[in-house]
Amino acid sequence: MSIISVTYVLGWVLRLEALFMLLPILCGVLYGEKELFAYVLTAVACALVSLPLAGIKRKNVEFFAREGFVATSLSWILLSIFAAAPFMMTGEIPRFIDALFETVSGFTTTGASILSDVESMSHCSMLWRCFTHWIGGMGVLVFLLAVIPMVGGSNMHLMKAESPGPSVGKLVPKVRHTARILYMLYVALTALQFVLLLLGGMIPYEALCTAFGTAGTGGFGFRNDSFASFSPYIQWVVTIFMILFGVNFNVYYLILLRRFREAARCEEMRWYLAIIAGAALLICANIYDTALTLEHNLRNSAFQVATIITTTGYATVDFDLWPTFSKLILVMLMFCGACAGSTGGGMKVSRIIIAFKAFLRQMHLSLHPRGVRRVRFEDRDVEEETVRAVSLYFAAVAFIVCLSVLIISLEGKDLVTSFTAIVATFNNIGPGLNAVGPTCNFGAMTDLSKWVLIFNMLTGRLEIFPMLMLFYPPLWQETASRIRLDRKKKHRSA
Amino acid sequence: MSIISVTYVLGWVLRLEALFMLLPILCGVLYGEKELFAYVLTAVACALVSLPLAGIKRKNVEFFAREGFVATSLSWILLSIFAAAPFMMTGEIPRFIDALFETVSGFTTTGASILSDVESMSHCSMLWRCFTHWIGGMGVLVFLLAVIPMVGGSNMHLMKAESPGPSVGKLVPKVRHTARILYMLYVALTALQFVLLLLGGMIPYEALCTAFGTAGTGGFGFRNDSFASFSPYIQWVVTIFMILFGVNFNVYYLILLRRFREAARCEEMRWYLAIIAGAALLICANIYDTALTLEHNLRNSAFQVATIITTTGYATVDFDLWPTFSKLILVMLMFCGACAGSTGGGMKVSRIIIAFKAFLRQMHLSLHPRGVRRVRFEDRDVEEETVRAVSLYFAAVAFIVCLSVLIISLEGKDLVTSFTAIVATFNNIGPGLNAVGPTCNFGAMTDLSKWVLIFNMLTGRLEIFPMLMLFYPPLWQETASRIRLDRKKKHRSA
Repeated sequence: MSIISVTYVLGWVLRLEALFMLLPILCGVLYGEKELFAYVLTAVACALVSLPLAGIKRKNVEFFAREGFVATSLSWILLSIFAAAPFMMTGEIPRFIDALFETVSGFTTTGASILSDVESMSHCSMLWRCFTHWIGGMGVLVFLLAVIPMVGGSNMHLMKAESPGPSVGKLVPKVRHTARILYMLYVALTALQFVLLLLGGMIPYEALCTAFGTAGTGGFGFRNDSFASFSPYIQWVVTIFMILFGVNFNVYYLILLRRFREAARCEEMRWYLAIIAGAALLICANIYDTALTLEHNLRNSAFQVATIITTTGYATVDFDLWPTFSKLILVMLMFCGACAGSTGGGMKVSRIIIAFKAFLRQMHLSLHPRGVRRVRFEDRDVEEETVRAVSLYFAAVAFIVCLSVLIISLEGKDLVTSFTAIVATFNNIGPGLNAVGPTCNFGAMTDLSKWVLIFNMLTGRLEIFPMLMLFYPPLWQETASRIRLDRKKKHRSA
Repeated sequence: MSIISVTYVLGWVLRLEALFMLLPILCGVLYGEKELFAYVLTAVACALVSLPLAGIKRKNVEFFAREGFVATSLSWILLSIFAAAPFMMTGEIPRFIDALFETVSGFTTTGASILSDVESMSHCSMLWRCFTHWIGGMGVLVFLLAVIPMVGGSNMHLMKAESPGPSVGKLVPKVRHTARILYMLYVALTALQFVLLLLGGMIPYEALCTAFGTAGTGGFGFRNDSFASFSPYIQWVVTIFMILFGVNFNVYYLILLRRFREAARCEEMRWYLAIIAGAALLICANIYDTALTLEHNLRNSAFQVATIITTTGYATVDFDLWPTFSKLILVMLMFCGACAGSTGGGMKVSRIIIAFKAFLRQMHLSLHPRGVRRVRFEDRDVEEETVRAVSLYFAAVAFIVCLSVLIISLEGKDLVTSFTAIVATFNNIGPGLNAVGPTCNFGAMTDLSKWVLIFNMLTGRLEIFPMLMLFYPPLWQETASRIRLDRKKKHRSA
C-alpha cells in the first residue's frame, strides 16, 4: 500500500472539512451565537493539520484497490473525529465518545443520537449536525473527486470504496465528471425540497435542516418528537423526498438526458417502489385506526415505511407500539435498504434482487446440472464475480451482526433491543425497537457498546470491506515489506 | 420427471413404514395396551396402498436430480401423513393438523410438540413418537437404499436430496454399501447409548425412547419436565451422545477402519467441538449460580449447548430465563447446527466455515483482483460450485425465515416468539424462546401457523431445494410435456 497516496487524500479531506465548517460559522453569525468560535477554531485546526500534507506531489499519488479502501475508511474516521471537536468545545456533548458517536452517526447518515433533548442545542451546532448527513450522504470522497484534480483513471477505486451498491459504475467516461454530475443532481434535489418546505410554511433554518437530513437519508431530528408535530403537507413532502433520495441517481441522470423511457425501465427502482407500496399498504391495513381518516392512516404508514427503507430514521408516530406484523415488516425493510447509487443505506434492493435471481438460477441448475444460465439484472447479464460477492454479502452481514449483537447483549438489555440496536446502526437507520425505539436514544449505553455501534455504522455505510481492511493483517504486512524495499532501494542508489 | 420412478420409491417407503410400525405394536403387546390396534390398522393400510405400486418393473426406474428431489420430499410428506393416523385413531391427538405437526416434527427430528401433557400418552404411541426421530435422523431413503436393490449409480441423487450438508459424498464406491455402513454405525451407537442409560438405572422403555430421541437429535420428551428430573449421570450420558450424533459419520467410518489420525484431523469436527466448548464455557460464566456446584453449572450449560447445537431440543433447565447474552448464543447455535453428514439439523458447521473462508478469500481478492485462490476445507480445494451454493444458502435461509416469520406474526405474539418459533422449527430444534420456550408448546397456535411451521420443518430438514422443487412451475411444465410426448409416441407405435 502506498502510504503517501493515503496521506494525500486525508490532507484534502481535512481541507474540505474546514471549508464545510463555514456553514455553521455563518449560521452562528446570523443567530449571534458564541458557539460559532468552536467551529472557527476547529476549521483552523483542520487547515493547519492538513498543511504539511499539502507538499505531496500529485505525480507520486497512485490508487489501487487497497489504497482506495484504506483512504476511504481513514477519511471517514478522521472526518468524524474533527467534526466531534466543536460539540465538546461548546459543552453541548462534553464526552469524546458521545460526540464521536453523534458525528459518525451524522456522516454515515444513521441519525442515531445520544441526545435526549435536541431542542436545547444551539442553532449552529444543530445545523452542523444535520449538515454532516448531507456531506456523508453522497460521500465526501465523491465530492473530493469532483473538485480536486487526481491522476489518471485509478481514482475510480476511491469512488468504488465509498459508493454503495454491488457494482459501482460511472455515468460518463471520466470519474471527475461523474462525481460532478452526481453532486449537481444532489444539490438540485436538495434545493427543490428546501423550496417546497418553505412553501409549506417552515422557517428557513428548519427547512434547511430537514432538507439536509432527507437528502442524506440521515434522520437527525431537531424537535424532540421528530416530525409528529409538522403539518400533513410537510410530512408528505418529506415522505416523497425520502423516497426520491433512495432512488439510484443514474435514473435522474437519464432523466436529465431526456432518456425518460430508459429511466422508467430501471429494474431496481421498480422493485424499490413496489416494495414501498406493498409494505405501506400492508402496514396501513394492519394498524388501521378508525378514529383517524384514511389519509392520516396512509400518511403514517407511508412515512414510516419511507423513513425505514431509505434508512433515514425520522418518525411521525412511535412505531414501537405497532403490532408485531408491522414491526417485523419494518425490521425487514431495515435490512433491505434503498437502491444502490442512492444516498440510502441497508443491503440495497439490487443485492436482494440479484441474490433472489441467483437462487432461482440455482433451482434451475439443480434440475439441469450441465445447463448454463446467467443471472440477468437491468437487462444485462450480471458478472459471476458480482453474483459471488452479493451472495457472500449476506453471510458477511450475518457474521458482523451476530458478533456485534453478542457484545451489545452484555448490556443486559432484552433481545429485541440488542438486536435492533445493531440492525439500526449497521444499516444506518437510526431508531430501532424497545429501548432504542423512535422515542428513545442511545445515550444510556456503555462505552463498549458505543464503540461497537460506531464500528457498525462505519462498516455498514462503507459496505464492510473498507473498514474490515483496516484489521486485515496481510495488508499491513505487505505495506511494511514494501516500505523496507523502498528504503533498501534508496540506500543502494545513495 | 419420471413419475413412475417417484411412485416406485413412494411404494417402498410405505412398505417400510408398515415394517417400522411393528415396534409400537410389539410395545403395545408387552404393555397390554389396546392402542396397538391403531398401529396394526395403519400398518395394514400402508401395505395395501403400496400393493398396486409393487408392479412397477425395476428396469423402468431411473433417477436424475429432479426425481431425487421430488421423491424425497413426497416420501417425507407421505410418511408423516400415515404416521399421524394412529394418533388420531387412538384419540390421543384427535385433530389431523395437530397429529401431522407431531409426526413431521418427529421425522424431521425437530421435537416441537403440540402436547401439553406428554405423560398421559400410551406407551406404544410414545415409543412410535420417539421412533420417528430415529427413522428421520439418518433418513428413510438412506435406509431404503441400504435394503432394496436399485438400478445403477443414479440412486445417488436420492441420497443427495435427503442427506444434510453442502456436498454429499460416498464412503465407499457403492451407494448401497455406503447406506449400509451408515445404518450399521447408527444402530451401534444407539445401542451403546441404550446400554449406558440402562446402567444409569433408567427403565428399558425410557432408555429406548431417550436413545431414539438422542440418536436422531430429535428431542421429544416423555416427561413433562424433559430431562430436569434425571440423575447427573444420565444427563451427562445424554449430553455426550447428543454431541456424538452431531459429528460427521465419516469420522466414525474412519475410526472403524482404524484410520484414527485421519479421523482426528476432520476439520469440521474440530470446529464443531471448539464451538461447543467455547459456547458452554461462555454461558457457564454468564449464568454462574453460586448456590450450585461447578459441576452442576457446567452440566447445565453443556447440556443446553449440546441440545441446541445438535438441534435435539431436550432441556434440563428453562433457558428462557437466562440472561440475554446466553440466550443470544443459543439462538446463534440454532442457526449454526451440527456437522454435515450427521443426524443434526441447522445450517451445518461446514457451511459456516466455508462461507467464512470464502469471505476471507474475497478480502484477499479485493486486494489482488487478478489473483487466484481456492477455498480450502478438510485439506482439499472446495469446488467453486459448492462455494457458490453455500454462499447462496445464507440468502435462501434469510428469504424463507423472513417470509415465514411474517406469516407467523399474524398470531399477534411478540417478536421474539414469532422469530424463534420459525428458527426452532426451520433448524429442527424444537423449543424456541418466550411463548414457544422449553416449558411451553406449539398447541395454541392457529392452523395457518401450524402449516407454516410444518413447511419450515420439512424445508429445513431436507435443506430447502427438495421442498421448494414441489412449488417450482418449470419442473411440472417439463413433466407435463414429457407425458404428452410419451403418449404421442405410444399412439404412433400403435
